[in-house]
Amino acid sequence: MGSAMAANLLGAGHEVHVYNRTRAKSEALAEKGANIADSLEEVAQSKVVFTMLANDAAVEDAVVGSNGLSAHLPSGSIHVSSSTISVALSERIAQNHTMRGQEYVAAPVFGRPDAAASAKLFIVASGTPGALETVSPLFNVLGQRFFHISEDPKAANLVKLTGNFLIASVIESLGEAMALAERGGIERHRLLEVLTSTLFTAPVYKTYGGLIADRHFEPGFSAPLAQKDIRLLLEAAEAMNVSLPFASVIRDRFLNLMAQGGSELDWSAIGSMAARDSGLL
Amino acid sequence: MGSAMAANLLGAGHEVHVYNRTRAKSEALAEKGANIADSLEEVAQSKVVFTMLANDAAVEDAVVGSNGLSAHLPSGSIHVSSSTISVALSERIAQNHTMRGQEYVAAPVFGRPDAAASAKLFIVASGTPGALETVSPLFNVLGQRFFHISEDPKAANLVKLTGNFLIASVIESLGEAMALAERGGIERHRLLEVLTSTLFTAPVYKTYGGLIADRHFEPGFSAPLAQKDIRLLLEAAEAMNVSLPFASVIRDRFLNLMAQGGSELDWSAIGSMAARDSGLL
Amino acid sequence: MGSAMAANLLGAGHEVHVYNRTRAKSEALAEKGANIADSLEEVAQSKVVFTMLANDAAVEDAVVGSNGLSAHLPSGSIHVSSSTISVALSERIAQNHTMRGQEYVAAPVFGRPDAAASAKLFIVASGTPGALETVSPLFNVLGQRFFHISEDPKAANLVKLTGNFLIASVIESLGEAMALAERGGIERHRLLEVLTSTLFTAPVYKTYGGLIADRHFEPGFSAPLAQKDIRLLLEAAEAMNVSLPFASVIRDRFLNLMAQGGSELDWSAIGSMAARDSGLL
Amino acid sequence: MGSAMAANLLGAGHEVHVYNRTRAKSEALAEKGANIADSLEEVAQSKVVFTMLANDAAVEDAVVGSNGLSAHLPSGSIHVSSSTISVALSERIAQNHTMRGQEYVAAPVFGRPDAAASAKLFIVASGTPGALETVSPLFNVLGQRFFHISEDPKAANLVKLTGNFLIASVIESLGEAMALAERGGIERHRLLEVLTSTLFTAPVYKTYGGLIADRHFEPGFSAPLAQKDIRLLLEAAEAMNVSLPFASVIRDRFLNLMAQGGSELDWSAIGSMAARDSGLL
Repeated sequence: MGSAMAANLLGAGHEVHVYNRTRAKSEALAEKGANIADSLEEVAQSKVVFTMLANDAAVEDAVVGSNGLSAHLPSGSIHVSSSTISVALSERIAQNHTMRGQEYVAAPVFGRPDAAASAKLFIVASGTPGALETVSPLFNVLGQRFFHISEDPKAANLVKLTGNFLIASVIESLGEAMALAERGGIERHRLLEVLTSTLFTAPVYKTYGGLIADRHFEPGFSAPLAQKDIRLLLEAAEAMNVSLPFASVIRDRFLNLMAQGGSELDWSAIGSMAARDSGLL
Repeated sequence: MGSAMAANLLGAGHEVHVYNRTRAKSEALAEKGANIADSLEEVAQSKVVFTMLANDAAVEDAVVGSNGLSAHLPSGSIHVSSSTISVALSERIAQNHTMRGQEYVAAPVFGRPDAAASAKLFIVASGTPGALETVSPLFNVLGQRFFHISEDPKAANLVKLTGNFLIASVIESLGEAMALAERGGIERHRLLEVLTSTLFTAPVYKTYGGLIADRHFEPGFSAPLAQKDIRLLLEAAEAMNVSLPFASVIRDRFLNLMAQGGSELDWSAIGSMAARDSGLL
Repeated sequence: MGSAMAANLLGAGHEVHVYNRTRAKSEALAEKGANIADSLEEVAQSKVVFTMLANDAAVEDAVVGSNGLSAHLPSGSIHVSSSTISVALSERIAQNHTMRGQEYVAAPVFGRPDAAASAKLFIVASGTPGALETVSPLFNVLGQRFFHISEDPKAANLVKLTGNFLIASVIESLGEAMALAERGGIERHRLLEVLTSTLFTAPVYKTYGGLIADRHFEPGFSAPLAQKDIRLLLEAAEAMNVSLPFASVIRDRFLNLMAQGGSELDWSAIGSMAARDSGLL
Repeated sequence: MGSAMAANLLGAGHEVHVYNRTRAKSEALAEKGANIADSLEEVAQSKVVFTMLANDAAVEDAVVGSNGLSAHLPSGSIHVSSSTISVALSERIAQNHTMRGQEYVAAPVFGRPDAAASAKLFIVASGTPGALETVSPLFNVLGQRFFHISEDPKAANLVKLTGNFLIASVIESLGEAMALAERGGIERHRLLEVLTSTLFTAPVYKTYGGLIADRHFEPGFSAPLAQKDIRLLLEAAEAMNVSLPFASVIRDRFLNLMAQGGSELDWSAIGSMAARDSGLL
């Protein structure tokens, strides 16, 4: 994801310095004009620094670790965090940056790697109006649209997690619908065609419904990563005393899928669990 | 619904005989050219007879009751049942019609009364190819599109119930998302705008999301009627040993809503239960 | 169950007339001194008539059917119904008996057939104080204790269904606990010994826990019959707008068990579903 | 809890050194003969060191923190941890002690403070046979019985969490049963009497059932502490890909209770949520 985003910034004529702990990963970008930095300290000299990392542990280490970005970022510079991370970590990062007079924009994205490459991401951003104004031209390069959620950075992270929860809800609901229909003698693709031609025309229904109907779960977004996002959602909700019964069902689907050997599959494979429960698989 | 459908058939130049136990309800249609029948026996003389009634009890009485439609329908005539009824009743009706050499098309519809009036219904039909061929010109008058599901009538009823389940799943998932977002400091309409501008562009998200964000639950489709459909879905699923955890959550939401005084509300009011649970209401 | 109860009444010196549609089934009781009746009409001449039948359909037919018990029972006689039936049917039976001036005591029992044989049943009874006073000496013959719940017969049926729900809750909770423990390296029987030696000393924990730990599900009370009772519970709850999330989980366990080939097993087999979900089976 | 346990050890003639960050809390024990230590380093010179603390954070700090017990405990000494902590922390502690040649016995207890005072605790212990042999005379002083679960310390912590889950399941099942019964016209205490006189004779049913029937939720074990234990259970289960649907229901009950103002109540107050959902409260 990060490479695709950097490439788009380069393509739009921006000066880009890139840092990856594995230097070799930066070389393809160097060929496109990026400067390879040797340390976080070096990239921290940029006016705006994007981070795009795999999970909370990686972000925590890179940003608020003892030799992390925050230790080197000049006061007034802007850190844009596009990773999908927990609400709690986003809050800790915000406190850290505020303490040091640094600006922090949480800006997770919706879209798979191909959407990042074609600059079709949706960007969900929270931060101060000033910081947002500075980075919005960059967002316009990276995505098809961006949304300013609020001044509180962690709100953007919560919206991102909520979006994934809603997609997972679509997957589970379709999985239940197809198991029932199949037991009732209705062909899965036929059901899907009716649904997506009438009330459920959003692409998520076609995309995930197709995967479930085909029972084809080659990984795009793997089950353990998606399960992690549902865990982050439930942890955020728990901290605010909000119960989410659909999210609990989805959580259990992921655990069952992984316990039964599905850790290598795409997250849409939870859409096959209703069929499994009802003896169809 | 039935009146709007009859009016459309009249508007398309068809000869229509209407019967309602309360004769006064037929008079508006008489002004549009319908013949008012005095009994089920009389309407049974039509080549094709549509029934559109409130629930299983009404359909059972009107169709397979001792003086019902089936007792009077000539062999070879076609009964089109557009009511939302149970899979079990649809099967009993099918057996009854088959025994008497009558054709039976189960053809429930998606769409609210205004969609019926403007001939924008989606019609989900099951029956023999011959019967479908005969009635398809009528379906083209009544709706914007129809789908032939299978030869087994009850399959169409199952698809209808499944569609309502999927809408209810959208409502519940949005209800949970909005409660969480609100607790996290995100304005409900703002969240909805992000969602429906990006991944969830289907009209159901906009329509029901708007009602939930507004907390405006004036009845279109009332909670007890929707709860009845979820009950029919769960009964059909139970008869086939299919468990539907999302449907069970939705069922409980309806029961809680009605227990807490919401029986007069629109079914989208279950989208406020997550807020209620988390102390926002 | 009915035979064992009749035998105990005979053993206590009561005059007993028995009726079974399959006369041969009554003959063993005749050897113990029972009079075999040829019809419901004939047994209806007894001052107190017990019915003990398999399900709602059998009870409905035998009691309020056109040639059923109620049609023949003299005014003032007492019908004691010990079958596990729905709350709704119990209410219809009550209305029917009241209309004809007959007394109705709903008196379902807790206990397996061996408890019936050894007069160790617990009897849960509802009816008028007068009727209860008349039948209480019989209850003392049939069981180790009886409880007068209320004057409303259907209340006793609800207590019976509630008892089965609570046992099923014990089974499910132990099934989850054992799956978790096993994954965590704790031997199932060892866990059970700790639990039943400390906080959970009730026999239900030992009995059902032992079956789950042994994974031995030879039928005592078969899964489909238990699932029927959970269905009756959920129907009664739905009619009163009461949601029961534990009961919904249990319902789904039964459906999954039966869908996966477990219809011949004891109901305690739902205690193996958590292990199945987590890949242990 | 810790004070009561120390007092019992003193009463049995053992030499006891006590340490509490708030020295005043140790003084009552000094009057009973305990030596007050000034630091963890000082208590670490005992052959066996018990810790009994409020939560993971306190235990982590006291045991594996930079100046914690483990830093001072001589090789071969035994640390007995009786706190209710997470499985993950117990595993980290085990690794830490093993690395330093220290013995670690995880020994959480079942029982409220009054049970600790009267030496009626049940102790669930895991550790090496040698360590267990050394500490078993102490366990016999502290509780009415102890169980050796396995050599893996964290197994004992898992059993403790499982026990609390099973109690919470009893509470929830009784809460649902009582809401249903009350809606059905059955007095709550009457239902409870029937249940606890027949199938559910374990003290947990009487104790918690009585609190629910009385709707008296003065704190013994407060809701937030119990919710924490359910969280630890679900986290341990998640790490092993085990889904626990009953535990998820219980989790949501706690969140709803606390969101609706019940954070000061006893954990048995989740037994009132079914009544609240069904409009009885």
